[in-house]
Amino acid sequence: MKVVSASDFQLNRENDYGTPEQNETVKTIVQAVRTEGDTALLRYTEQLDRIRLTAGQLRVTDEELQAAYQKVEPTFVEAIRAAADNIRAFHMKQKRNSWMDVQPDGSILGQIIRPLKRVGVYVPGGKAAYPSSVLMNVIPAQVAGVPEIVMVTPPSTGGEEGINPYILVAAAEAGVTELYRVGGAQAIAALAYGTDSIARVDKICGPGNIFVALAKREVYGAVNIDSLAGPSEIAILADDTAQPAYIAADLLSQAEHDEMASAILVTPSRKLGEAVAAEVERQLELLPRRDIARASIDHYGAVVVTESLTEGIELINRLAPEHLEIITEEPMSLAGRIENAGAIFLGPYSSEPVGDYFAGPNHIIPTNGTARFASPVDLDDFIKKSSLIYYSREALLANGEQIMELARREGLEGHARAIAIRLEQER
Amino acid sequence: MKVVSASDFQLNRENDYGTPEQNETVKTIVQAVRTEGDTALLRYTEQLDRIRLTAGQLRVTDEELQAAYQKVEPTFVEAIRAAADNIRAFHMKQKRNSWMDVQPDGSILGQIIRPLKRVGVYVPGGKAAYPSSVLMNVIPAQVAGVPEIVMVTPPSTGGEEGINPYILVAAAEAGVTELYRVGGAQAIAALAYGTDSIARVDKICGPGNIFVALAKREVYGAVNIDSLAGPSEIAILADDTAQPAYIAADLLSQAEHDEMASAILVTPSRKLGEAVAAEVERQLELLPRRDIARASIDHYGAVVVTESLTEGIELINRLAPEHLEIITEEPMSLAGRIENAGAIFLGPYSSEPVGDYFAGPNHIIPTNGTARFASPVDLDDFIKKSSLIYYSREALLANGEQIMELARREGLEGHARAIAIRLEQER
Repeated sequence: MKVVSASDFQLNRENDYGTPEQNETVKTIVQAVRTEGDTALLRYTEQLDRIRLTAGQLRVTDEELQAAYQKVEPTFVEAIRAAADNIRAFHMKQKRNSWMDVQPDGSILGQIIRPLKRVGVYVPGGKAAYPSSVLMNVIPAQVAGVPEIVMVTPPSTGGEEGINPYILVAAAEAGVTELYRVGGAQAIAALAYGTDSIARVDKICGPGNIFVALAKREVYGAVNIDSLAGPSEIAILADDTAQPAYIAADLLSQAEHDEMASAILVTPSRKLGEAVAAEVERQLELLPRRDIARASIDHYGAVVVTESLTEGIELINRLAPEHLEIITEEPMSLAGRIENAGAIFLGPYSSEPVGDYFAGPNHIIPTNGTARFASPVDLDDFIKKSSLIYYSREALLANGEQIMELARREGLEGHARAIAIRLEQER
Repeated sequence: MKVVSASDFQLNRENDYGTPEQNETVKTIVQAVRTEGDTALLRYTEQLDRIRLTAGQLRVTDEELQAAYQKVEPTFVEAIRAAADNIRAFHMKQKRNSWMDVQPDGSILGQIIRPLKRVGVYVPGGKAAYPSSVLMNVIPAQVAGVPEIVMVTPPSTGGEEGINPYILVAAAEAGVTELYRVGGAQAIAALAYGTDSIARVDKICGPGNIFVALAKREVYGAVNIDSLAGPSEIAILADDTAQPAYIAADLLSQAEHDEMASAILVTPSRKLGEAVAAEVERQLELLPRRDIARASIDHYGAVVVTESLTEGIELINRLAPEHLEIITEEPMSLAGRIENAGAIFLGPYSSEPVGDYFAGPNHIIPTNGTARFASPVDLDDFIKKSSLIYYSREALLANGEQIMELARREGLEGHARAIAIRLEQER
């Protein structure tokens, strides 16, 4: 792992917006499902997933869900339930009330906060099918009060056996209300526009391959979508009090995700930096996913030695990492100086996997430097707000002239007259 | 104005994503400003706005801002101050605190809520330059605590005199901290990527023409953007207790905005519907902007007669209008049944212009049916959140095994080892 000074460090970041051919394919699929509905949905499922289904077979039954519990270890069920409880408890703290502001003149202004009515969650197939992501997408929607939570996942995520039973158990525990075996751009199109079998949703969440990501961009506007995630990232800010082996393990837990994942140690201690670099090399060789982790560490990993912790914080704020661990003598004293980071893990025991799986905060966090302006998934992603204005007669009489003044300066006489006609009659 | 039954009614809605040529032009401009900076910014300003500026002339000075006050009527300054006070007071109610949840095992979980650091507000030139929109974009950012609020507007919005003085006064009252005379796609690119004269921002807000809208889509990802507004809409739900003249005036206040604006009355009373249709015809002829209002009413306006108020509410929920007025005998009894509406105006005195200009809630509201999943602009648009995880040693020892169980079921051994290495050492 390379060790560089802050002035020599440049983070490599890449965005994948697909090839023109991929974009064209996605547009074709989305348009076909939009116009032909189930017919196109089933045709693409046969063509792309190599599975022939009838419309009646799209929905996963309650029996299948229950059967999945027999295929997983009891320790898994216990662990996922404990995690779900924690995630639910944390997101419950984000609940917000509708509110009113009653004015002295009898007017009432306010904001009505309601859950979305129907949300779609995409769960990828194959090795990227993560039960923890099912919890992190579904539970906030459920806590927000969304009555219909629809999950879609490719029909053969678990091989010939059908859908991965760990995913099914996570879906059941999280509170999914409908589940369909359909994936890819065709599933996104069905969620966005609706078919006879799958009613359209208000918002689509969840990760997927490039076709899924492009399809989400394509349907945005007809429905809301979550943000498009980039490769995962960790930055660790540490001083001499930190244990190199812990830091190395945490960097590697990020690096094993993806060849494009990024793992950066920022430290004013060259000694710590060199010890971590050596420890990364040692631990890396022992990892099952060592090829992926190696590529990530070589291309997107670094130990950055800074002049001071303050210079380190400045660098972190420029990076705006998805995950930030602070392992220093007094980590809480630095937390308030972090302007840009999606999730902040403090102290030696707050290893990133604690947050990935278990503690409660969401693990869907802005990547690629977007923590500068974006936030982790939370209840706000599953609500909508309406303004409420009840204006009293007294308020209109008192303020009508000023409202007309503003309307007329904008050349909108019709706006002024809507007030004038009332003033004339009510005075 | 046409009167139809609910079953015969179909709302026309259109989206404008620009022609291929417009998209190409915008890509070229954005790319040029991104790579050449001020040079391209000034070149396009000369080419498109026909005004030659030096980099030093881009920024509007405090003297120019103060001079604008001499060019507007004192009644306007009074009215805009009263409006700004109301908007500020309403948005202050949306303030949220960072919070912590202290656990029995000594762990601390929480959410840090911070303002964005730097926000850009686009204000269009010409007749679409509305001081009220300056207030509605800038005040929420200012109340949220955004320290740098940058406004850009084309250099000749007020003709040869320079920038429209009403816009300048609104900017000063709202709390803009920097103001630049630059517009179009080139201004959006400068805000997104930064130039020597204009530092990049975290989010770009505000309406604009098709080139501005396409440029915002183009830079999305490098910065955040607000939603892309469609034509303005009003729906009014009314019964026999309503005054036809008020309703007609409110419909026309929407119709005068734009030939694509939509104004719909929904009522179970055919008598009221016909009276309103006649009143619209009468009032329309007297409006200065009668040609625009006529086109809007003819193409996007309707009186829809329903079987009942309940059927009316169902129709409203399908429309998901930007603005909804409820003018019935007991409007509050219906408000809770409205699932989809951006802003709800209750009773005979809550004419839409009350909200457009003055009451306090934001007038930037989801259009085109997107109130199904989107919300009016508020403080949430100008903050970012970071999760905080401080996990105690006790918590890690108690939960480490379950975290490892979940990591291993996902095939992420590196995640499990980040926990295991700590358990081995701490136990």
